[in-house]
Amino acid sequence: MFRGALGLRRNMATFSGLRLNEVVNVLEKFAPTSLAEKWDNVGLLIEPSTDKHVERILLTNDLTEPVLGEALEKNVDLIISYHPPIFRPLTRITMANWKERIVVGCLINSKALYSPHTAWDKVLGGVNDWLAKAVDIKGIKPLIPEPGTVDGTGSGRLVETNMPISQLVHALQDHIDNSVHIAYAVDHHPKTFVRTVGICAGSGGSVLKGIQADLVITGEMSHHELLDFNHNGTTVLLCNHSNSERGFLREFQSILKERLQEKCEVLVSEKDKDPLQTAFRSNLQAVQQVKQ
Amino acid sequence: MFRGALGLRRNMATFSGLRLNEVVNVLEKFAPTSLAEKWDNVGLLIEPSTDKHVERILLTNDLTEPVLGEALEKNVDLIISYHPPIFRPLTRITMANWKERIVVGCLINSKALYSPHTAWDKVLGGVNDWLAKAVDIKGIKPLIPEPGTVDGTGSGRLVETNMPISQLVHALQDHIDNSVHIAYAVDHHPKTFVRTVGICAGSGGSVLKGIQADLVITGEMSHHELLDFNHNGTTVLLCNHSNSERGFLREFQSILKERLQEKCEVLVSEKDKDPLQTAFRSNLQAVQQVKQ
Amino acid sequence: MFRGALGLRRNMATFSGLRLNEVVNVLEKFAPTSLAEKWDNVGLLIEPSTDKHVERILLTNDLTEPVLGEALEKNVDLIISYHPPIFRPLTRITMANWKERIVVGCLINSKALYSPHTAWDKVLGGVNDWLAKAVDIKGIKPLIPEPGTVDGTGSGRLVETNMPISQLVHALQDHIDNSVHIAYAVDHHPKTFVRTVGICAGSGGSVLKGIQADLVITGEMSHHELLDFNHNGTTVLLCNHSNSERGFLREFQSILKERLQEKCEVLVSEKDKDPLQTAFRSNLQAVQQVKQ
Amino acid sequence: MFRGALGLRRNMATFSGLRLNEVVNVLEKFAPTSLAEKWDNVGLLIEPSTDKHVERILLTNDLTEPVLGEALEKNVDLIISYHPPIFRPLTRITMANWKERIVVGCLINSKALYSPHTAWDKVLGGVNDWLAKAVDIKGIKPLIPEPGTVDGTGSGRLVETNMPISQLVHALQDHIDNSVHIAYAVDHHPKTFVRTVGICAGSGGSVLKGIQADLVITGEMSHHELLDFNHNGTTVLLCNHSNSERGFLREFQSILKERLQEKCEVLVSEKDKDPLQTAFRSNLQAVQQVKQ
Amino acid sequence: MFRGALGLRRNMATFSGLRLNEVVNVLEKFAPTSLAEKWDNVGLLIEPSTDKHVERILLTNDLTEPVLGEALEKNVDLIISYHPPIFRPLTRITMANWKERIVVGCLINSKALYSPHTAWDKVLGGVNDWLAKAVDIKGIKPLIPEPGTVDGTGSGRLVETNMPISQLVHALQDHIDNSVHIAYAVDHHPKTFVRTVGICAGSGGSVLKGIQADLVITGEMSHHELLDFNHNGTTVLLCNHSNSERGFLREFQSILKERLQEKCEVLVSEKDKDPLQTAFRSNLQAVQQVKQ
Amino acid sequence: MFRGALGLRRNMATFSGLRLNEVVNVLEKFAPTSLAEKWDNVGLLIEPSTDKHVERILLTNDLTEPVLGEALEKNVDLIISYHPPIFRPLTRITMANWKERIVVGCLINSKALYSPHTAWDKVLGGVNDWLAKAVDIKGIKPLIPEPGTVDGTGSGRLVETNMPISQLVHALQDHIDNSVHIAYAVDHHPKTFVRTVGICAGSGGSVLKGIQADLVITGEMSHHELLDFNHNGTTVLLCNHSNSERGFLREFQSILKERLQEKCEVLVSEKDKDPLQTAFRSNLQAVQQVKQ
Repeated sequence: MFRGALGLRRNMATFSGLRLNEVVNVLEKFAPTSLAEKWDNVGLLIEPSTDKHVERILLTNDLTEPVLGEALEKNVDLIISYHPPIFRPLTRITMANWKERIVVGCLINSKALYSPHTAWDKVLGGVNDWLAKAVDIKGIKPLIPEPGTVDGTGSGRLVETNMPISQLVHALQDHIDNSVHIAYAVDHHPKTFVRTVGICAGSGGSVLKGIQADLVITGEMSHHELLDFNHNGTTVLLCNHSNSERGFLREFQSILKERLQEKCEVLVSEKDKDPLQTAFRSNLQAVQQVKQ
Repeated sequence: MFRGALGLRRNMATFSGLRLNEVVNVLEKFAPTSLAEKWDNVGLLIEPSTDKHVERILLTNDLTEPVLGEALEKNVDLIISYHPPIFRPLTRITMANWKERIVVGCLINSKALYSPHTAWDKVLGGVNDWLAKAVDIKGIKPLIPEPGTVDGTGSGRLVETNMPISQLVHALQDHIDNSVHIAYAVDHHPKTFVRTVGICAGSGGSVLKGIQADLVITGEMSHHELLDFNHNGTTVLLCNHSNSERGFLREFQSILKERLQEKCEVLVSEKDKDPLQTAFRSNLQAVQQVKQ
Repeated sequence: MFRGALGLRRNMATFSGLRLNEVVNVLEKFAPTSLAEKWDNVGLLIEPSTDKHVERILLTNDLTEPVLGEALEKNVDLIISYHPPIFRPLTRITMANWKERIVVGCLINSKALYSPHTAWDKVLGGVNDWLAKAVDIKGIKPLIPEPGTVDGTGSGRLVETNMPISQLVHALQDHIDNSVHIAYAVDHHPKTFVRTVGICAGSGGSVLKGIQADLVITGEMSHHELLDFNHNGTTVLLCNHSNSERGFLREFQSILKERLQEKCEVLVSEKDKDPLQTAFRSNLQAVQQVKQ
Repeated sequence: MFRGALGLRRNMATFSGLRLNEVVNVLEKFAPTSLAEKWDNVGLLIEPSTDKHVERILLTNDLTEPVLGEALEKNVDLIISYHPPIFRPLTRITMANWKERIVVGCLINSKALYSPHTAWDKVLGGVNDWLAKAVDIKGIKPLIPEPGTVDGTGSGRLVETNMPISQLVHALQDHIDNSVHIAYAVDHHPKTFVRTVGICAGSGGSVLKGIQADLVITGEMSHHELLDFNHNGTTVLLCNHSNSERGFLREFQSILKERLQEKCEVLVSEKDKDPLQTAFRSNLQAVQQVKQ
Repeated sequence: MFRGALGLRRNMATFSGLRLNEVVNVLEKFAPTSLAEKWDNVGLLIEPSTDKHVERILLTNDLTEPVLGEALEKNVDLIISYHPPIFRPLTRITMANWKERIVVGCLINSKALYSPHTAWDKVLGGVNDWLAKAVDIKGIKPLIPEPGTVDGTGSGRLVETNMPISQLVHALQDHIDNSVHIAYAVDHHPKTFVRTVGICAGSGGSVLKGIQADLVITGEMSHHELLDFNHNGTTVLLCNHSNSERGFLREFQSILKERLQEKCEVLVSEKDKDPLQTAFRSNLQAVQQVKQ
Repeated sequence: MFRGALGLRRNMATFSGLRLNEVVNVLEKFAPTSLAEKWDNVGLLIEPSTDKHVERILLTNDLTEPVLGEALEKNVDLIISYHPPIFRPLTRITMANWKERIVVGCLINSKALYSPHTAWDKVLGGVNDWLAKAVDIKGIKPLIPEPGTVDGTGSGRLVETNMPISQLVHALQDHIDNSVHIAYAVDHHPKTFVRTVGICAGSGGSVLKGIQADLVITGEMSHHELLDFNHNGTTVLLCNHSNSERGFLREFQSILKERLQEKCEVLVSEKDKDPLQTAFRSNLQAVQQVKQ
């Protein structure tokens, strides 16, 4: 299947390229994999040969089969997937399962794969700092600072600000370029002013649990977690899991180009997107815009 | 706080009423608590006295503080909350925590509390059968039949049908009277015909995992679960957790009135609602209606 | 049942009273709940409202149903029960179980409940120091000192003394005003002089295990623990569980009155007592007084 | 030490004796060790040689050092100790610990050791059936019947009777020839009639937990277990651990003699006794005899 | 590295070949993977594409790097490695580790990989039955029969025979075509006659533990296991782990050829061998032949 | 059986002897038992009486039944067995099991038993330092240094050297006076020069795992461990478990004699030997001497 796609590869690169381990060193310098959580699986996950040469790189949030198809068509050498496509360890590598098919597809087409995940969440200037830019920042610090690192490194972010909820919702919609779900705290309404905001890209329920904040922004949260935040006086804004992360890829595209001294082409996937879309009901719209 | 509300109670009941244990027997007959999952906490959770008399009953999906306020104002005697408000066991009962405050509020105002939860999920004619009515049903059976019970009892439902996805989405929006989130399978589009549908109200990720179905309907699911379903050829419709359950209360209101022989007044809460609303972006609407 | 008792309440208080949180602060100052063991459940366990006013307090070792009846009849506002009546966490609060009935009884009659338990065991001047007064003390220190606290705080006590066993038995009988059970070490007899005594109120088996002492005093101990102590050269005196603790309540009554500046009335329960009594045989008495 | 005692041995046996494995077969026939609990350590625990000849046997409840001294002085060949002297497994066998010294003492003096423990508790006609004889029995069955065995085998006993508590206490004192401790149920007094009695020799707390009985008889129980029984309407009689078991040895002495066809002499230890004695206070007696 | 070897590939096959799933079906029919132990990882472990065509097959005991080199040079399509090369699950697939390099080498060169392991151990006519042929068999059955399968299936083998140890050693040397290590039971010598023999290819310590046999044959065993067998009267013959298994490959070569109806070429690896060789001391030889 | 041997005891000692605890103090001074691993069982394991007098001592690697027979015949008072004969704790001491028989044999014949095991492995000048003498040492240090001890103490040894493998094999054969098994690293051959050597007497698989060394020497290792070392560039030499330890006994014999000031006779067992011998095939010898 993937091989069939090879005929379509466009030859468009005029970049000198670098050795794979040189690119990995640059990625490690930006966000050391030692920052990642113990349970995570980060770093170079697929290495087709020791002397792999890299001219073109594809950035994606999730390495799905459509994104792999794009990587083959665009003839990239390295895929950087924010989420690790190998998370539960593999005991075999066959065509029977989509995660194994992706490993086969990378290897037989000689694509390297690198995943940063929670290392990018914690690093200063990483995913959470990007997400926080939706807010008018008057002060910012990590929720759980990482010991032995530069200030500003750690899990989640706590932001000081001064905005009404309605304004923050619009700013967040603009920042992630997408819809937002709102769960109001028991005593909040669109005009309530927010002074402290907790931030955690992805599934933030456990990192944000128990913090004192007027509002929290994350990707997804369970029904029972939502009820708890709302009853503890905290409004919750949900972006959908990957919409809280994906926008960082554009920012990282520039960072990486510069750090590679323009020796590699860096692309952002056009096929990568959140799996979830909302089919709203027309007659509900007006109602949803304001709080009953 | 709750006591202050007592002065506002309207005296509107002209029902003869029943003893609490008589009402509990009727509830048990509809859906025995022995059906519930091992980890669940169902049945009579608060009993203010052994001879409690019940004239008015309030049905709710979640017993939040606003709903408790409504129960006091309407002077109900028994609250039936689908989700058990006491889930993590209590080691103390103080004013420091919203869940404990609800227990205090029930007891000092002499409100009994009953929760059915997964007993209603499994029973024939319960929550999952109600949710399945959104689909044009050609055949229906439980995903995990419950041994030793009448046919049709068990966890989740598997429905045979023959509808395009777009039509199913509209039918579901009408049924739950709310918006729906869609995550299309890799090869699906709005016109794809669906023949098998998995149903699980609430958080259906683990019950639905691994089933062979063209489409599944549930309340909420994590990002990584969504990706897995979509890559295994299954489209997912999400209703938000409690919207996949709440509509059953109206149906149950009639059932209960009749089974109590009109001796008690049965109300559905007006304050109970899903904590989550979607703030959509105007310019995204058109795009979201069709698949890119 | 409890409500019926309300008609009997005597109005005898002429105390100005304090807010509940002010009384709790005074209790915390005497013995911080942070001292308690990890597995324990101490502090304010039932709080009927945030602005509870306290004029009368009842001290008890165990909050049994007879003691709750006494609390209602005497119209106290706060019960201080040394043992926490809520130990295994509750998943429901009904009339089906005596522990749940006690919670219901407190809440519908607006009684607050506080339990100190192992915080009082460890504190300097607490339960173990009270129990040690049965011995002629030449030196005293905790068996397991508590790190980061004032000297003398910790689990159990080790006392230096110089008394024959028979004299110590009589002194202990006088101190706890009750019978005492004796298990002699293999080489001991009533006239053996004791120089070191281990003390642990309640069930002291695990705290006292392995210490070097001529004699230990505790509330209860299993048959096999007794055999181990006796074979390691240690005589054991048992008081029955709560008799090793209850006497402290009289001492604490004075302490609390003074610390509350006489603003609250402090009573000791008349219904609280150890559930165990000994029915001795007349003809065995003489034999039991001396060792065979 | 033990060797020094050898000079004192009296030569009083005129019994032909049996091989050790023949005696073990007789013991196994009375109560198979397969009946014992999984966590127990029963059967032949010390075997000094494969061809050990047995002329004299000593029965004891606990093999303490005084009992071992008695065994040496009386020159017995086999000790049957109801409780296994080796319970926690041994990693060494030295003179530093009383349990290890007993093993050394048996081996260097060629004494075999056998322990039946929970096999005797469960067998029909064993320890619990003996203890039940204190009650006027109108019906009797095991609390937990043992699957695959003859009727009447299992853990604990449930006895039907019809006696006032005061009469049962005296009957039990006579049966065990010792004092008894009483914890009255909340609504009981000496004249309350008892219809069902739970029996469990030793530490009966967990076997008896949750049974429906007016009264239970066991050896020892913790303070919190006592409170639970008393609040659930059950009076508790405690005999001290080994006094609930020891009396069976006299009964077993006759059984064993007959089963060995008088080929071995069977003695009951004179040194074995419960480590616990009660030192009562004279002025409390009258009070303790009746319930306040 | 592996790619460099491609130039050397000889084109020598004139076999029509079969689809990979057809070959897998034949392998499954010989020994169903459902026979394998729960902890094992068997079946098709690497599948480079769903329509893989198989003309040439290489059998090996272990898939080491030299064996993979041989597979590339001989241009085989499928490697059947008795031991699964993926045992601990993989979290990444790079050049940093020999096991991962083998996965990369298979995939980029489109080699499929199948491992039977404990399915072959248990099947009738499998590895253990082959190893047993070293013995003069008078009777044979599995040590642990597999429920629900044909007679003769299961773990290990128990063989009845009648040979002196010395003769059995020579027969085993001939059968495995290699040296053998002997650990004599305490009372055995070369002329001792053996009547029962336990057989377990590989590391047989746990399967053989506790069996009653005069002699056991396995691949490897620890020092402490050896001492236990010898003291329980059992002589042990060790072949080295893979020498107890490898000889079966020749036998399986014929079986497979026939079952594939000669449509595929089946080779046995020439590079596969046990990693261990013995460097004996000349002057010890004579001594080692006889027992001191 | 053991008793029967007593008649054969030769009276050959003319040593004044020492008390057992004095000998134990000397042994503890050489290698404190506090050095041993947490899971180990070391020190004085059998002590027949507190005042045991020691004139003759037998050193052995393993205390098997033949070695115990030797101890009885030579009338030694103390056996020092490198491996602890009691490892899995005992729940009984009978004739049914060889390990229990050895305990019985020691006690009824009044033999004391001491085991040092991992304390000797770690101590400077102990078992691993002795094994390392096979190598031409240019530098040596522990693989895992023991915190808080003198330099050179710890688990395993890392030796710097400069020898071809073939020379090292011969030196090791001479040092242990026995055959050696070789598993060559993928790129090694007999003439490869070795610069770093890992040493671990006994079963060294886990201590040596992951170290960077050209060659490792240990007693035994599993097939799968061998493959891992060989693919990571490390040649493995195996001595058989106890041959990697036993030679130290001769060295320790001199050390102990001197430290006991010649007051006790110190013997090395003549019956103790590795249970494993190799029955090589004549025609394989030449082949095994060189690598194919």
